[in-house]
Amino acid sequence: MAISTAQFLDFFGVAVFAVAGALTAIQKRFDIFGVIVVALITALGGGTLRDVSLDAHPVIWIANTSYLITGIGAAVVTFLVARWIDIPQRTLAVCDAIGLAFFAVAGMQKAVALGHSGEIALLMGVMTGVAGGILRDVLCNDVPLIFHREIYATAVIAGGVVFLILRSWGWLAQWYALAAMLVILVLRLSAIFLGLSLPQWMFSRSKGSRL
Amino acid sequence: MAISTAQFLDFFGVAVFAVAGALTAIQKRFDIFGVIVVALITALGGGTLRDVSLDAHPVIWIANTSYLITGIGAAVVTFLVARWIDIPQRTLAVCDAIGLAFFAVAGMQKAVALGHSGEIALLMGVMTGVAGGILRDVLCNDVPLIFHREIYATAVIAGGVVFLILRSWGWLAQWYALAAMLVILVLRLSAIFLGLSLPQWMFSRSKGSRL
Amino acid sequence: MAISTAQFLDFFGVAVFAVAGALTAIQKRFDIFGVIVVALITALGGGTLRDVSLDAHPVIWIANTSYLITGIGAAVVTFLVARWIDIPQRTLAVCDAIGLAFFAVAGMQKAVALGHSGEIALLMGVMTGVAGGILRDVLCNDVPLIFHREIYATAVIAGGVVFLILRSWGWLAQWYALAAMLVILVLRLSAIFLGLSLPQWMFSRSKGSRL
Repeated sequence: MAISTAQFLDFFGVAVFAVAGALTAIQKRFDIFGVIVVALITALGGGTLRDVSLDAHPVIWIANTSYLITGIGAAVVTFLVARWIDIPQRTLAVCDAIGLAFFAVAGMQKAVALGHSGEIALLMGVMTGVAGGILRDVLCNDVPLIFHREIYATAVIAGGVVFLILRSWGWLAQWYALAAMLVILVLRLSAIFLGLSLPQWMFSRSKGSRL
Repeated sequence: MAISTAQFLDFFGVAVFAVAGALTAIQKRFDIFGVIVVALITALGGGTLRDVSLDAHPVIWIANTSYLITGIGAAVVTFLVARWIDIPQRTLAVCDAIGLAFFAVAGMQKAVALGHSGEIALLMGVMTGVAGGILRDVLCNDVPLIFHREIYATAVIAGGVVFLILRSWGWLAQWYALAAMLVILVLRLSAIFLGLSLPQWMFSRSKGSRL
Repeated sequence: MAISTAQFLDFFGVAVFAVAGALTAIQKRFDIFGVIVVALITALGGGTLRDVSLDAHPVIWIANTSYLITGIGAAVVTFLVARWIDIPQRTLAVCDAIGLAFFAVAGMQKAVALGHSGEIALLMGVMTGVAGGILRDVLCNDVPLIFHREIYATAVIAGGVVFLILRSWGWLAQWYALAAMLVILVLRLSAIFLGLSLPQWMFSRSKGSRL
């Protein structure tokens, strides 16, 4: 049974996002059920919101239950393994960047395939990539991580703009998709290894400077 | 006007879940509107997520507004009565177990009736039973209760597996539904009265044991 | 290019709600992306939940991307301007009241136009008006503001009841819509300027009085 590169990346993305969700839930000391729920919502929440918004039924994990099984499997393995092994933050962040790049581009391709405009496709790319992480943090009662100071959604937006420009130039689907993924990946890796971040409103400082 | 046992259990489930939601909101000192919103979301949130995920429109409370009226009524009565009477935790937990058993099985039956696979039916049973409580806790800015140490979703999963096995053996719908409800109920009551819980990841302890 | 009063109010409502969302996110020190997401969810979250619940696809911001652009524009301007100018709370509250009145009535009109009952229309009015604010507070990890002591949803419900009564009397659509908006507006402004609020459950006090 051969699976395509796209399918491999798809399941890889689900697994990596599920691991990230499971680790957050484990740190919160959730039980095995809580860990699985948080992992599944992290991995599949973005795609679900996208499909429901676009009225693109059946939603991904109903159309193909392998996504659920991949996510549950990743969560259970993480739950068992986390006792013995510390997963290095950087390794996880790099895997997450690959998952993000693929999810975002897959989200855009789905919107475009359904005949939506470039703006909606871009929004769906961002939603597919980041909504799962936001839902994870809401469920864990944290302020969503990606609202703070790191280039994450911005990388998706930049990749999405490249996607739309190359597409308007008549590039073939596999090439503009690949280019967009590379842009997202390079920006995310730069943020991880060089510590880049977005401007943030320096509230206290500006208050201070007025005095 | 006679209503069937199934209908009675349905409204009973909505009322009990609404009372549980209302009590949480009252403890947070919400006003009457906040109490009603939290009660409705606790009682109908799981079914709504199920129907939207399955694209099974109209969603339950649009198809039959009696659900809304039951939920609002239960919330208002709870709001008024909570001043004078302490509702015993155990009484509420037992009623909640009955509601859970019925909601979960009703969720599975709906998915099966729509032609979905056993996996999706099981997921829908869990979603119908537990998502309302998760949304309640998110709205009240708490970490979802059911992610911590108590057999709750597990009871639903066990009942769901029984549902699927007996169904595959060719049992009649009313019997496998009843058997699944009993399994959920017995497991929940055991958890309530015997204090059973799921394994949880002892993070700090394992860190300590390595030193 | 002339736009109608209804359209103007629609975009005004989106802009005002987006500003309110952006200010909350700025106070939480989110980055520009976080500010835009919170602003969009505050402005469009209620309408999205309404459309998804009613299965009224395409949802508003897919049918007309001007809503997205208005919301993003308002968020970016707020982000830039908030450094130099303090937006007075009262000014914002008055604008928010206008937005609320329009959103709620627009939500009811949509439900009625789709053939739903008065109860569902009322619920959709409340949902369109208040769900965005609830989602904003959940994302910012706060207890939803409107669950505490201020006449907000109550104003929407009162306006909605007026809407339904005048409609049943055979008034023309523009008149009962206008009357409902005025009721909401007057009640909200009374709450803002006179400090009215709903009864709240005085838990600790009642506990004390029993001793």
